[in-house]
Amino acid sequence: MTKHRHVVALNTGGGDCPGLNAVIRAIVKRARIYHDWKIIGIEDSFDGLINDKMRVRELTRSSVAGALTRGGTLLGSTNRGNPFNVGGQDLSERVADRLRALGCEGLIALGGDGSMTICHELSQKTGLKVIGVPKTIDNDLKGTDITFGFNSAVEFATMAVDRLHTTAESHDRIMVVEVMGRDAGYIALHAGVAGGADAILIPEIPFDLHLVAGKILERQQMGRYFSIVVVAEGAHAAGGGQLHDNLSGAKKRLGGIGRYVAEQLHEITGIDARDTVLGHLQRGGVPTAFDRILASRLGNHAVDLVERGDWNRLVVMRNDTVDSIPLADAVGGTRSVALDHDLVATARGLGISFGDEV
Amino acid sequence: MTKHRHVVALNTGGGDCPGLNAVIRAIVKRARIYHDWKIIGIEDSFDGLINDKMRVRELTRSSVAGALTRGGTLLGSTNRGNPFNVGGQDLSERVADRLRALGCEGLIALGGDGSMTICHELSQKTGLKVIGVPKTIDNDLKGTDITFGFNSAVEFATMAVDRLHTTAESHDRIMVVEVMGRDAGYIALHAGVAGGADAILIPEIPFDLHLVAGKILERQQMGRYFSIVVVAEGAHAAGGGQLHDNLSGAKKRLGGIGRYVAEQLHEITGIDARDTVLGHLQRGGVPTAFDRILASRLGNHAVDLVERGDWNRLVVMRNDTVDSIPLADAVGGTRSVALDHDLVATARGLGISFGDEV
Amino acid sequence: MTKHRHVVALNTGGGDCPGLNAVIRAIVKRARIYHDWKIIGIEDSFDGLINDKMRVRELTRSSVAGALTRGGTLLGSTNRGNPFNVGGQDLSERVADRLRALGCEGLIALGGDGSMTICHELSQKTGLKVIGVPKTIDNDLKGTDITFGFNSAVEFATMAVDRLHTTAESHDRIMVVEVMGRDAGYIALHAGVAGGADAILIPEIPFDLHLVAGKILERQQMGRYFSIVVVAEGAHAAGGGQLHDNLSGAKKRLGGIGRYVAEQLHEITGIDARDTVLGHLQRGGVPTAFDRILASRLGNHAVDLVERGDWNRLVVMRNDTVDSIPLADAVGGTRSVALDHDLVATARGLGISFGDEV
Amino acid sequence: MTKHRHVVALNTGGGDCPGLNAVIRAIVKRARIYHDWKIIGIEDSFDGLINDKMRVRELTRSSVAGALTRGGTLLGSTNRGNPFNVGGQDLSERVADRLRALGCEGLIALGGDGSMTICHELSQKTGLKVIGVPKTIDNDLKGTDITFGFNSAVEFATMAVDRLHTTAESHDRIMVVEVMGRDAGYIALHAGVAGGADAILIPEIPFDLHLVAGKILERQQMGRYFSIVVVAEGAHAAGGGQLHDNLSGAKKRLGGIGRYVAEQLHEITGIDARDTVLGHLQRGGVPTAFDRILASRLGNHAVDLVERGDWNRLVVMRNDTVDSIPLADAVGGTRSVALDHDLVATARGLGISFGDEV
Repeated sequence: MTKHRHVVALNTGGGDCPGLNAVIRAIVKRARIYHDWKIIGIEDSFDGLINDKMRVRELTRSSVAGALTRGGTLLGSTNRGNPFNVGGQDLSERVADRLRALGCEGLIALGGDGSMTICHELSQKTGLKVIGVPKTIDNDLKGTDITFGFNSAVEFATMAVDRLHTTAESHDRIMVVEVMGRDAGYIALHAGVAGGADAILIPEIPFDLHLVAGKILERQQMGRYFSIVVVAEGAHAAGGGQLHDNLSGAKKRLGGIGRYVAEQLHEITGIDARDTVLGHLQRGGVPTAFDRILASRLGNHAVDLVERGDWNRLVVMRNDTVDSIPLADAVGGTRSVALDHDLVATARGLGISFGDEV
Repeated sequence: MTKHRHVVALNTGGGDCPGLNAVIRAIVKRARIYHDWKIIGIEDSFDGLINDKMRVRELTRSSVAGALTRGGTLLGSTNRGNPFNVGGQDLSERVADRLRALGCEGLIALGGDGSMTICHELSQKTGLKVIGVPKTIDNDLKGTDITFGFNSAVEFATMAVDRLHTTAESHDRIMVVEVMGRDAGYIALHAGVAGGADAILIPEIPFDLHLVAGKILERQQMGRYFSIVVVAEGAHAAGGGQLHDNLSGAKKRLGGIGRYVAEQLHEITGIDARDTVLGHLQRGGVPTAFDRILASRLGNHAVDLVERGDWNRLVVMRNDTVDSIPLADAVGGTRSVALDHDLVATARGLGISFGDEV
Repeated sequence: MTKHRHVVALNTGGGDCPGLNAVIRAIVKRARIYHDWKIIGIEDSFDGLINDKMRVRELTRSSVAGALTRGGTLLGSTNRGNPFNVGGQDLSERVADRLRALGCEGLIALGGDGSMTICHELSQKTGLKVIGVPKTIDNDLKGTDITFGFNSAVEFATMAVDRLHTTAESHDRIMVVEVMGRDAGYIALHAGVAGGADAILIPEIPFDLHLVAGKILERQQMGRYFSIVVVAEGAHAAGGGQLHDNLSGAKKRLGGIGRYVAEQLHEITGIDARDTVLGHLQRGGVPTAFDRILASRLGNHAVDLVERGDWNRLVVMRNDTVDSIPLADAVGGTRSVALDHDLVATARGLGISFGDEV
Repeated sequence: MTKHRHVVALNTGGGDCPGLNAVIRAIVKRARIYHDWKIIGIEDSFDGLINDKMRVRELTRSSVAGALTRGGTLLGSTNRGNPFNVGGQDLSERVADRLRALGCEGLIALGGDGSMTICHELSQKTGLKVIGVPKTIDNDLKGTDITFGFNSAVEFATMAVDRLHTTAESHDRIMVVEVMGRDAGYIALHAGVAGGADAILIPEIPFDLHLVAGKILERQQMGRYFSIVVVAEGAHAAGGGQLHDNLSGAKKRLGGIGRYVAEQLHEITGIDARDTVLGHLQRGGVPTAFDRILASRLGNHAVDLVERGDWNRLVVMRNDTVDSIPLADAVGGTRSVALDHDLVATARGLGISFGDEV
């Protein structure tokens, strides 16, 4: 019987994100071509280890053929159970036991903040060794400059804004585009600048829609009868308290922040306003070259860490260099758009309103 | 002073539609290179002739440079006033008088059912000579096999379904995609077949969501935990009467048929369901090659008709041949998906449910 | 042992073409969901039956999961041996015998003119029953109005012309784009009109480059310092004889008609000229929605024919209706661009030169 | 008469590059909205100042409407004369005099290494004040981490490799893709990794095609009958001297490095090999969101520098922060791919051959 130098498990958790398969491919190719690992893919996030019937399968070079251009994940669904709470039960020991029974030295986990928290706790409680690879469309993970999937989302969102431009112009309308970003406004900021928006509303800058409306009316006086507003899911009105409650109620009633902003802007300006929610369209599809490269670099570094025995770390990008930080430092909290970043200044320079006083 | 062989006005009306500029370009290029026309573009549909201050401008070859790849319309907004009802006033004579004063022999109008009705009435009432070029994303105009803009909308909607596929698969979800089509299901049918949908709901086939749910549960038993449903705006439940009222209420409450379908399917199947509304994204953007070619052919034929003095006709496509019909035959009513067309049979052959008993 | 109602073989031959997998998918889904066929896929065109070691595999619904968006073919390579001439040997009987041994009632063959000729001969010589589904990027098969893959090729070629436009303009250059079309100019004509070319050179209209150069110099005098020329592989100079020999020699020396045209136009006009050969880029990639739909309709009809026992026919599209013709009528010769088609007139109306006297 | 706070000239030089218009737009919008500049655009690189008839025009906010999505440059052709050598004559003083006569305080020049050298010399000789904004598809300018246009080129080249993949696979072929990069292999490296190439040949790593062929034959033994090789224009064989001369001769005879590599690999392996030259397709088209953002940031910073009176500097990106360096430090020499960068290691980890011994 062959004895592999390393036996490593691999899973993907959290929401769909372009580039997941490129990370898996980079790990499998490198580890199989050069390092004689056995790689065990866990199906459906942790479910393949949690459920009564275990679902795992060996990943070989042929498993990842054609993976670069495929959206989604080779490893089933990303959106499944938390081993610490399976219908109220803590099955974390089962996960660790089964990985040990499979001969696994540790787990490489691709996931977002939630998955990394689970991994960290697994490692604390059961001694399971973990390498994390950060994954979020929103680009808001602490410890890393950029996450794969974000570029693909921004390119799609920008293309959507491009499309809405011609319609806004042909119909003299305010077009409100709601993009992802519950806690951070990265997608809105990037797609707004790239798409030539007139206003960008992000969680980091509470908005006053009267200021946005002022900008729109100013455009109208210059003979530009349409406007584009890009709004992050998590954007909210300045003022808080009462106002915040109103907004929550309105969002609930209307189905989202995009519709709320459109309705309010219509009320203030009298101009026809429509909203478009990009939603899941931002998560799917073929990853951009940028994300495939980023994902491949992260995957390659995960192999480095295992080869060095450097476990319980999160692979990160800093100043265009791949690196790692302790997993413990990565969990909890998100990263926000830095308001002194030159892209914010650039947006203002382009005349884009953030709905705040300047 | 030069005397032009023809002086012709040109306007665009109705919703935004990829290919409008390609029609304008084909008319202007042909008429300027070969026929010494003077072409007068009317700004903002009929508004350039209705409003107190007339807004028209001559269109020359340089006006249409770069027009092929531009969405929207060169002629301002498409979405403006009806000369027969300007705040309650009938200004149709003003329109005709002003065109006469400009020396125009007639008007080439690019527009949908509404615009064609206005043109026909203008022609009846004021003697204005008109050539119509049919324009609708929805492909539902009577008298023509296909309209420009439809192909662009289908390609975009299909790409959207492709993107949602990976997310549906990664999250074990039902994804409902609402596409345009108030009266006819062409976009839904085409994008649904091209995108590999599991169910397609169109106005021509009233649906029973229990049958759709049955299809989804059958997939689940085969280990396919996600499903894609493409639904046209105008789709509605079988049964009518009470059911129809419930649906109207629900759509109003929820914001659209897509959300209604998602909510109902979730309720019946217990599977997580989300909706995405493509909305205006389908109208904008760079036209496909297919639509640029179709639009150019229609524009070229409009020039033929004027050269022959064959006014008051609508340019149409029949059996891949450009032709024309009397404008009077074109107005009123829409064209629906023929339920005996082989594409419907093909969809059923692929296992796609229309939500009906088969 | 289950007895299937039909056992049918399936193969793909000739060059790569977007939509092949959509045809296979439509056949497999329909035949498996509704008709209880057993479908045997032959690997690598006829090679899976010719080579000593037979390579065939059953195709089921899971074989075609995800097939809609995949370029290439599920069935290995398309570009392999002719059973009538395997290193000089006629192995056609082996092919028929093996299919019989597999219990196959007949073969559904996806292929171009060459494959259809082989199939027709197989049927004549060995009694093998065949249904052909026509496949060519070039759109030049007799008997059908349109072939799948063509639309995808035109959309890509048009996008390429769009890209070259900005560079031609920024560099004051003549850009020559060589597209596919050895015998027919369909891709060149469509992509040329859609891309806004200044000249289109196709096999159906022998060219005189002095006439093209005249058009380019005329543009220059109007202040348009760049030009785009789209040329089909099979385009050739008017005059024939001596001229033809020179052209052949030049093409051989230079590597293709595109470079020849660029070099000649530079020589005549003095303007910098560059060529781009799209080549295989036109064959690959994800099929357009248009081609996926067309391919699905053809596949669905192939199943109809087998169900009816209507063998030895070619599935075709006529006036947007799927139909079939005897295989014997389909082989030999190609279909050319009809010079009286309104698209040719449209191109001339747009001021596009075909390099001929008008 | 209004007195502007600054009067600044603007031109674009060197090859076409996606993002040029986004830089111009960012400068014009910021400078017009906030700083009351007068901006004078020079037509056709320096030609608008060199030629007897001066061609300049004021750039206002309406000049840049719609500029974000337009390839090429608003300012005519990029590819024109050098003021130091106009048919042998030095007209650099004319350039400076005319700018002074126009009241210009200085020039913002968008260009590559060549343009920056001209600008630096103009500044040295005539005292003209200059701000440079670096522009090159190739990403090989010294002093900056990244240049706009590069991302757009990589995304296109990767999409091309994706397309060729299906064709390579369907035809059992070696596909060689020649991409830009005379001095540096950035595009080849990025598109090769993102596209899943089997070999990448770049100027920084002289190649031995026998090593590449070995990799291809090894794949063949694993049942993968096709291979993709991405080669930069400037790649060359190891060994130099005699070998280099042979290569130069062969490239000249064959028309490029791509064809040479294809021919050699065919000769060594016996496998059918084809080349595709992406050429100008990489330069044109709509810029990606990434490049629009990068270009906007650079343009915004150029305005900062003028506002601060910080002339004779080049705007650069370092560690995702916009900054500037003395123009003198930027000219001469190019930046190469760092062979110790983790992307090179990642490529090797993926099993990609650079044609060198490892």
